[in-house]
Amino acid sequence: MDFAAYVRDIEDFPKPGVTFKDITPLLKNPQTLKKACDALYNFTTNLKIDKVVGVDSRGFIFAPMLAARLQAGFVPVRKKGKLPYNTVSEAYELEYGSEILEIHTDAIEKGEKILIHDDVLATGGTASAVCKLVEKLGGEVVQCNFLIELTFLNGAEKLNGYQIESLLQY
Amino acid sequence: MDFAAYVRDIEDFPKPGVTFKDITPLLKNPQTLKKACDALYNFTTNLKIDKVVGVDSRGFIFAPMLAARLQAGFVPVRKKGKLPYNTVSEAYELEYGSEILEIHTDAIEKGEKILIHDDVLATGGTASAVCKLVEKLGGEVVQCNFLIELTFLNGAEKLNGYQIESLLQY
Repeated sequence: MDFAAYVRDIEDFPKPGVTFKDITPLLKNPQTLKKACDALYNFTTNLKIDKVVGVDSRGFIFAPMLAARLQAGFVPVRKKGKLPYNTVSEAYELEYGSEILEIHTDAIEKGEKILIHDDVLATGGTASAVCKLVEKLGGEVVQCNFLIELTFLNGAEKLNGYQIESLLQY
Repeated sequence: MDFAAYVRDIEDFPKPGVTFKDITPLLKNPQTLKKACDALYNFTTNLKIDKVVGVDSRGFIFAPMLAARLQAGFVPVRKKGKLPYNTVSEAYELEYGSEILEIHTDAIEKGEKILIHDDVLATGGTASAVCKLVEKLGGEVVQCNFLIELTFLNGAEKLNGYQIESLLQY
């Protein structure tokens, strides 16, 4: 399956100079949606996963599906103020300014094995913050799983020591 | 399955006087996550669906899973400025001020049969705006599908004429 044919480049989004990888053509096609689910799931063969953590908001698209297939639970990580219950938080740097991500304090039990999923691995700032949130709760990150990896941004370096899988590399 | 036992009331969220239905306990439990997927899917028996539209961002949790099981495509509706390609938009009233939702212009073909999914049906403002977006593109809304319906807010009235299904009613 040539997944790349279903990812569309959008120039200057969300800001000038950035080329955005638009996955909506892949999502709206029943065959590529199904095959992308299967391929992301196949990365997890032989892993025992207790919870799949999905990152707000495009990480929510595949993470719950992976959780259901793995007979695991789904846990959302969201931007500050969006989760209603008690949270722990982690700040991380963006190109301009910073962002804060949160997870519910009761989302993960100590020792649980965690799969993190997001749509895109770019600089690794987000994924690295999510790893820290999981570990603050005592979870063990067994894989960081992405639809797309922008290898030229070297996000894998920031996730050094974690297993990384991605369906499409640019 | 007593799904209600896995939905937690959070008082005064997101603002004073509002009781928020927190579905994260249901999502993090592998059994309730799986059974909620099955139950939402069972609402669609005998329907022929081409695309499932999920509403940003908690609608993304179950909509892509429904799409994959229905061998349909998934289409996100997002808040203004979040979708990267050409969009059509629909404004709707909130208790204070208004909100704008968008859909990609190429997301739906004329005559396609559409299932709309969101986590909560409250006043119906959001779902009604999503129906209008689908219809602007020539799609036919065959069901509005929710995890939770807050019946005391009378959202069903605003969706008069559309088929509504929900897993939990309050």
